[in-house]
Amino acid sequence: MNGEFVNNSNCSTVFEYIDKHKAEHLEKLKEIIRIPSIAAENPDGVRRCAEYLENQFRLLGCREASIYKTKGQPVVYAHYDAGAKNTLAVYLMYDVKQVSGERWTLIKDPFSPEVVQMSPFGGVLVGRGTTNSKGPLMAFLNALFSIKASGLEIPVNLKFIAEGEEELGSTHLIDFIRENLDKLKDVDAVFSPSGSQSIKGDVTLTLGCKGVTEFELVCSGKNWRRGPVERAIHSSMNAIVESPVWRLVQALASMTDPDDPSRVLIKGFYDNVAPPTKEDLLLIEELAKVYDEEAVKKANGLEHFYNDLHGKELLMKAFYTTTLNIQGLYAGYTGPLFKTVLPEMAVAKLESRLIPNQTMTETMEKVRKHLDEHGYPDIEIREYPEENGVDDWSRTDPKSGIVKITIDTYREAGFEPQVWPYMLGSAPRYMFTKPPLSLPFIGAGLGHGARAHAPDEYYVIDGNDKVKGLVDSEKFYVKLMLNYSDGALN
Amino acid sequence: MNGEFVNNSNCSTVFEYIDKHKAEHLEKLKEIIRIPSIAAENPDGVRRCAEYLENQFRLLGCREASIYKTKGQPVVYAHYDAGAKNTLAVYLMYDVKQVSGERWTLIKDPFSPEVVQMSPFGGVLVGRGTTNSKGPLMAFLNALFSIKASGLEIPVNLKFIAEGEEELGSTHLIDFIRENLDKLKDVDAVFSPSGSQSIKGDVTLTLGCKGVTEFELVCSGKNWRRGPVERAIHSSMNAIVESPVWRLVQALASMTDPDDPSRVLIKGFYDNVAPPTKEDLLLIEELAKVYDEEAVKKANGLEHFYNDLHGKELLMKAFYTTTLNIQGLYAGYTGPLFKTVLPEMAVAKLESRLIPNQTMTETMEKVRKHLDEHGYPDIEIREYPEENGVDDWSRTDPKSGIVKITIDTYREAGFEPQVWPYMLGSAPRYMFTKPPLSLPFIGAGLGHGARAHAPDEYYVIDGNDKVKGLVDSEKFYVKLMLNYSDGALN
Repeated sequence: MNGEFVNNSNCSTVFEYIDKHKAEHLEKLKEIIRIPSIAAENPDGVRRCAEYLENQFRLLGCREASIYKTKGQPVVYAHYDAGAKNTLAVYLMYDVKQVSGERWTLIKDPFSPEVVQMSPFGGVLVGRGTTNSKGPLMAFLNALFSIKASGLEIPVNLKFIAEGEEELGSTHLIDFIRENLDKLKDVDAVFSPSGSQSIKGDVTLTLGCKGVTEFELVCSGKNWRRGPVERAIHSSMNAIVESPVWRLVQALASMTDPDDPSRVLIKGFYDNVAPPTKEDLLLIEELAKVYDEEAVKKANGLEHFYNDLHGKELLMKAFYTTTLNIQGLYAGYTGPLFKTVLPEMAVAKLESRLIPNQTMTETMEKVRKHLDEHGYPDIEIREYPEENGVDDWSRTDPKSGIVKITIDTYREAGFEPQVWPYMLGSAPRYMFTKPPLSLPFIGAGLGHGARAHAPDEYYVIDGNDKVKGLVDSEKFYVKLMLNYSDGALN
Repeated sequence: MNGEFVNNSNCSTVFEYIDKHKAEHLEKLKEIIRIPSIAAENPDGVRRCAEYLENQFRLLGCREASIYKTKGQPVVYAHYDAGAKNTLAVYLMYDVKQVSGERWTLIKDPFSPEVVQMSPFGGVLVGRGTTNSKGPLMAFLNALFSIKASGLEIPVNLKFIAEGEEELGSTHLIDFIRENLDKLKDVDAVFSPSGSQSIKGDVTLTLGCKGVTEFELVCSGKNWRRGPVERAIHSSMNAIVESPVWRLVQALASMTDPDDPSRVLIKGFYDNVAPPTKEDLLLIEELAKVYDEEAVKKANGLEHFYNDLHGKELLMKAFYTTTLNIQGLYAGYTGPLFKTVLPEMAVAKLESRLIPNQTMTETMEKVRKHLDEHGYPDIEIREYPEENGVDDWSRTDPKSGIVKITIDTYREAGFEPQVWPYMLGSAPRYMFTKPPLSLPFIGAGLGHGARAHAPDEYYVIDGNDKVKGLVDSEKFYVKLMLNYSDGALN
């Protein structure tokens, strides 16, 4: 019964189907959001959500749909063979962040999602995972089901990879990919459904991300063999006993410029940054025209950017600066008032965002060398790759087929996307974009949601003239799949 | 009926009474320890303990015994008029530290004290406040009651000042003293009963203490008007947003020598330390002969003192170095693994131990000036004098009568005390030793206890050949009062 799906009349059949089934489609968003798949806390919820997805892939008509165990949470893999020319891997995450400690005000239970009216939209669906990322995920699946329910064939072959521990750093996804490279060898590009609109309706397309290496510097009496070696002691002893806390402070201070601590003094720290390509410079030129600096300041509660940079200079700094951020710092007594204690250790949690072509290994070696050369061989560097995973940088060539087609599809829908050479943050894309797969990866879609990892997380169901709601977002996915069916994606 | 109390035969009458009433005296220790007078948590327990003490003072025959309200916990004041020549103020504390979070192993309930066998002693009384300080307090009161019960008069006039918030920094005791100076104008010296023996039986007599000023340095985007001003933001923004944490690290680092962070570079930080007196130098000379460096290292879990100093040099450093200790440090995310956050503030809890004749005011001015001159005028200094009180340094002249008599009494009992010009820590003595009272203050007594502020706190009931138990400790107080009755105490 499934017919070809290549012209607008077919498209309108699917669109009519979507219009008619808005209520059922919304119900499917609620269905998956009700499953408390908190990767950090609820393995049973994660398992149930994996089974739910596996079943959805079967219902869609996937040739294979299976749950793959990893050392962490399972990956749901499914293969939809449409007999089409192009094959798209679809990256999904089905886990969500914890809710403990959060004060939700719009609904009672983050796992009992409800539609609530919210200006400047109409109804928005409120609940944990609505925007990150079960809303876009289910909108995309709704679009695929709608194509089939309209008697048509999905225009591309799909290989779904749904992970259950994105919120834990995607630690074990890489294992699944390494072990199943043969399944992915015919893939042309990787696509991730996403509500890519801002609250104002602007569309962003990012072509990669920075890498990030996170590590603790631990200065302890135990390792130093000076100061309090076994445990914290009474601070009156400080007259004759040295302090590991002061030692860490001085070690940290040696790493940055006292007059501008954003400038890292570790030898070679800024080396191996690939210069921007001609295409990147053009993208940045365009971006500088539309990048809303005041809005970014407002959203982040800022009064000044670094050195009061703006325009193209600000963006160049944003994209091409390796950072050394202190995520956290602790030592000794941190409660109210004071406690007369000389602590036995101090810890700094550091993070460096890496730019292509820097490697985590070289950065960590430079940090180690700096500590050694500055007289701090005892200061320990602790990484936790087993629990924390690795987020390497990722680049998708602006000239890839999927990028061009996606931009064109946005334009067809009336949107001029802001194209970022990469985002400032990090994401588990490198495993697709780096060898051996070396695939282009993009996240795309209309629609908007916000407050990820925060109370009253929402996803827009009824949009306005700029921000698209559920129905239009599903239609856009249909259009996108149709456009992906022809031409080269990679 | 009360007779004179001047010769050894009378003393033996009292000693016999003490020998016979050991069980009842132990019961009185348990009685007061059962009252959970936790200053930080249990105002009702504190009130009950104040009432208990007030009643004890009445039973002893005090002319006045009253509970005085303060802005914090009450002070119990009592006046025992023996018609004697000398008048001793007796400083007591009746509050105790919290027990929450502590794992007691020798008894179940820290407020249901029990006698437990403990090597190298016999029985020790285990419970919160046993050594700090209800054990010595009640041993002293037992001694006084025993004198009276033997038909004798206490040989000195006593003015009891018992505070209920020593564990909160004695914040309001100074108010009581300022408001009741007339009550104290005929006092010759201040005495505080104390188990002054170490676990080996060595006796220590300290003639004062260091001052301490505690303060927080707070570096915030809010005050700096740079970096994240309102709240922590995503760390990917660090490429274009400055960090208050790095700023605090650099500000702190500027205060000490990178090559020796125990050396403070704040201008004038070591000024106004009074040179050691001839008497102090003699005391230190003597102390260096008996100060057990290895035992101190072992007790504190140390392998090295500062610069591997020892002997007289170590003690000189201990007594005459103004410290700048980091009690605690915190910023951003301090939980397990990592969180990609750029914190909006960082806090260091600092403490400086002051040597006579330094003042807190001058130290805080020097810190402020240092921050200002180094470009950190936005870094806030937070003190909490209302909640945290003030512990100024204190000195008692080694030539004071009470010091000499106490040393002689120790010698009579077969102990050569280690006399410290002052302790390295701080205590609320300055309100007695500085003008307008300008009184000598000593803590003295035989006996031993340990694990103050820690689980399984104990006080020795049955001693060994070196460490005195409850009975001998009470007898020593009797002897001490007798010796205080004659000669000048101040």
